Amino acid sequence: MKHFLNTQDWSRAELDAVLADAAAFKQSKLGDQLKGRSIALLFFNPSMRTRTSFELGAFQLGGHAVVLQPGKDAWPIEFDMGTVMDGEPEEHVAEVARVLARYVDLIGVRAFPKFVDWSVDREDRVLKAFAKYSTVPVINMETITHPCQELAHAMALQEHFGTTDLRGKKYVLTWTYHPKPLNTAVANSALTIATRLGMDVTLLCPTPDYVLDERYMGWAEQNVAESGGSFRVSHDIDAAYTGADVVYAKSWGALPFFGRWQDEKPIRDANRHFIVDERKMALTNNGVFSHCLPLRRGIKATDGVMDSPACIAVDEAENRLHVQKAVMATLLAQHG
Amino acid sequence: MKHFLNTQDWSRAELDAVLADAAAFKQSKLGDQLKGRSIALLFFNPSMRTRTSFELGAFQLGGHAVVLQPGKDAWPIEFDMGTVMDGEPEEHVAEVARVLARYVDLIGVRAFPKFVDWSVDREDRVLKAFAKYSTVPVINMETITHPCQELAHAMALQEHFGTTDLRGKKYVLTWTYHPKPLNTAVANSALTIATRLGMDVTLLCPTPDYVLDERYMGWAEQNVAESGGSFRVSHDIDAAYTGADVVYAKSWGALPFFGRWQDEKPIRDANRHFIVDERKMALTNNGVFSHCLPLRRGIKATDGVMDSPACIAVDEAENRLHVQKAVMATLLAQHG
Amino acid sequence: MKHFLNTQDWSRAELDAVLADAAAFKQSKLGDQLKGRSIALLFFNPSMRTRTSFELGAFQLGGHAVVLQPGKDAWPIEFDMGTVMDGEPEEHVAEVARVLARYVDLIGVRAFPKFVDWSVDREDRVLKAFAKYSTVPVINMETITHPCQELAHAMALQEHFGTTDLRGKKYVLTWTYHPKPLNTAVANSALTIATRLGMDVTLLCPTPDYVLDERYMGWAEQNVAESGGSFRVSHDIDAAYTGADVVYAKSWGALPFFGRWQDEKPIRDANRHFIVDERKMALTNNGVFSHCLPLRRGIKATDGVMDSPACIAVDEAENRLHVQKAVMATLLAQHG
Repeated sequence: MKHFLNTQDWSRAELDAVLADAAAFKQSKLGDQLKGRSIALLFFNPSMRTRTSFELGAFQLGGHAVVLQPGKDAWPIEFDMGTVMDGEPEEHVAEVARVLARYVDLIGVRAFPKFVDWSVDREDRVLKAFAKYSTVPVINMETITHPCQELAHAMALQEHFGTTDLRGKKYVLTWTYHPKPLNTAVANSALTIATRLGMDVTLLCPTPDYVLDERYMGWAEQNVAESGGSFRVSHDIDAAYTGADVVYAKSWGALPFFGRWQDEKPIRDANRHFIVDERKMALTNNGVFSHCLPLRRGIKATDGVMDSPACIAVDEAENRLHVQKAVMATLLAQHG
Repeated sequence: MKHFLNTQDWSRAELDAVLADAAAFKQSKLGDQLKGRSIALLFFNPSMRTRTSFELGAFQLGGHAVVLQPGKDAWPIEFDMGTVMDGEPEEHVAEVARVLARYVDLIGVRAFPKFVDWSVDREDRVLKAFAKYSTVPVINMETITHPCQELAHAMALQEHFGTTDLRGKKYVLTWTYHPKPLNTAVANSALTIATRLGMDVTLLCPTPDYVLDERYMGWAEQNVAESGGSFRVSHDIDAAYTGADVVYAKSWGALPFFGRWQDEKPIRDANRHFIVDERKMALTNNGVFSHCLPLRRGIKATDGVMDSPACIAVDEAENRLHVQKAVMATLLAQHG
Repeated sequence: MKHFLNTQDWSRAELDAVLADAAAFKQSKLGDQLKGRSIALLFFNPSMRTRTSFELGAFQLGGHAVVLQPGKDAWPIEFDMGTVMDGEPEEHVAEVARVLARYVDLIGVRAFPKFVDWSVDREDRVLKAFAKYSTVPVINMETITHPCQELAHAMALQEHFGTTDLRGKKYVLTWTYHPKPLNTAVANSALTIATRLGMDVTLLCPTPDYVLDERYMGWAEQNVAESGGSFRVSHDIDAAYTGADVVYAKSWGALPFFGRWQDEKPIRDANRHFIVDERKMALTNNGVFSHCLPLRRGIKATDGVMDSPACIAVDEAENRLHVQKAVMATLLAQHG
């Protein structure tokens, strides 16, 4: 069965079709593609845009979203197999996924890393367990990647540049400071989709410790080979910004420091100057700025950048609604 | 753009039209005024009636309500401008309001005071920030006033007296004891709507410390001048109740004691006898009793009063559904 | 007015009609029996299946469910009459039930025992208070019984055996270990419905302390007298399993130990071997296994049993959706 766990699992033609459907939904928001259908949205972490856009997307297509927060309003869940469940979890994902798949037509899952051991988090076990046991399609609502955000980001860039062909655009993914170590999901996703679309991609970060997991670095290399773009890592802020067409910002915790974040703190604190500000944006090729949101103003980007015409973060956020409707409709059309 | 932040911002003709629409919705509950439309309901505080009535109101008119609890299921929000956001909030209201306005057609906001500094709370910053940044109409679901409650209250009184003309009715807003200092919102609102409707209004409270903010005292004076009613403050329980047609009860914290509630406690504790009971109600002109709910029985009103035919609090609560449907439909009809 | 508080309050003909309606809904899931109607779902405890199935059931029949969690997103509620409410509760069930009944067409209530004093918990005061004050039908979503689960269980057994006549089937309700003392609701319900359907029922538990409340033991006896089945208690695992057609498992706390659970712990800990495993199931008459879920694997049942074809727990969970749609439609058809 086809899930939507990562864009990398879908062909370029499939992704292009989804983006075309999303553009059509943006023009005409109501439909009956989910008439009488439903999606369970499982949130193991907070959400504002993801929940609102999925819930409304289902409604606008005639369906209904049930929002569940396991461990809060629903029972805590075990994900390991073969366990004697004498801890906190009251039920196993095998039952949760099988039962939900009897009730609903789609299952969305948000499950951030635990931030203790990256070798565990990188297995994406929560998402994969749902995909394994569910008999209906599963959608990644952000785990260690964020493919819905990728599509919304791609759509916003295509709208901004007035073309679906983004090859040759100079794209900078810049790390920024944040008081807490955050998920690498959107960074992984930005690299993945930017290289997929054939852009010339620079990963800008303070030190080699902030390079992303080899899986996503590998996807970027593979995408470059297929799409004809380029990919490099840089620690030089001004060089990276100079001539950029797109600046995408995200903060994330350095992978080698998982579980010992106090050791990362001095490095993090020394790099607050990675903030996206007017001076840096002035180095770009009249570049556009975006971010997945939520964003701390004065930390990741200045008020001046956020409130400038160059900022398309709100457009990107809006597109979440449109692309997710397209993803839901596509999965249902295939799953029947 | 027209919001519904306070009844005082709306003309008497507009309010009358909303009340007429509400009466029509009470007769015929289903409609298509929100067909395919949506409202985001942002709750920074608990709710039973407000959430249920807005959510059902949207449904009954063909729409959908998304319920968000920032800081709980959604990210905590910053409301100050120009801040370096290195505290708890993960995003700024500028982005929250702009993004939600892309998703939904209306935004409702409940945000109680912080109870530390009234000079800050009285600025109603959360509501005003949403109204500033949102590109769709914003509805006050109770901040430092509660205009939806005002309309439901007015409707219940009009139903009770069998006329939309309440001029000349003797109206008593009485403070009551409550173990905790509560929001002045409903008290401010009761004064506002009762004087707007031309009633002879008495604010009954234990001491001058319990008089309301000058803004709302001023609105009452202004309304009296325009509507031909009257307004006075009293600390004499029996005099205030005698001959009253309407008794409306509410507990609130004394404004001069914001941030040092331990000093207010002895005054509060000495005035438990402000409870609405059968003896006091017997002094009225066969008066009707109401309250916005929730209400602590045995504290604010006796079981005997609550269960008597004179109590129309449940009617008033029901009317929340009808008036809010009218407000939503009115705002959408204007906003398009 | 007719509520759905316990199957025991409904005639066998009524229950059979609901099960027939449920089977029809399983074949054809969409309908308009709740068109424009609504149900309030009040959860005082967590839920996954109950919430999802009620919320979707309402949607699939054209209605809408409002989910409230008193004490969390809604105000805490007082259930005693004649109280001076100076504790935590902000409002009385009299107002909550009366107001909700103005908004919605049905009210569902989940309220587990407090586990301190069984003589209090056995009064089922929360559910009964809603039934007393509500002017619309009330549905038990699990309090000290779980009638919706009973119907889903009965339906799954009827499907499994290919007949609505389950008389003569050998039915074992077995206690199992769980690290915490749990609600007796599903155990009470299993006894109730299994004897109602005329099966030969064995209650298998470690010691006489685990026998259920006399009310439910009495219902079982009464049902046996009317339906022609049988009912006995056993503490012999192998004897109880031998020849069984149905094994239903549940953990529960021993009633005599309410409020002093540390004294029950050694008994509980000494009986982990009550787990449903392959060896025990091999003693049955090719028996079927089920459980209401959530279920701790390796504690209540082994992975081998849960993943075997004999396990119909997921079918039973699915049936929650169908039977609850039938219950809602039945109550609305009667209440008008």
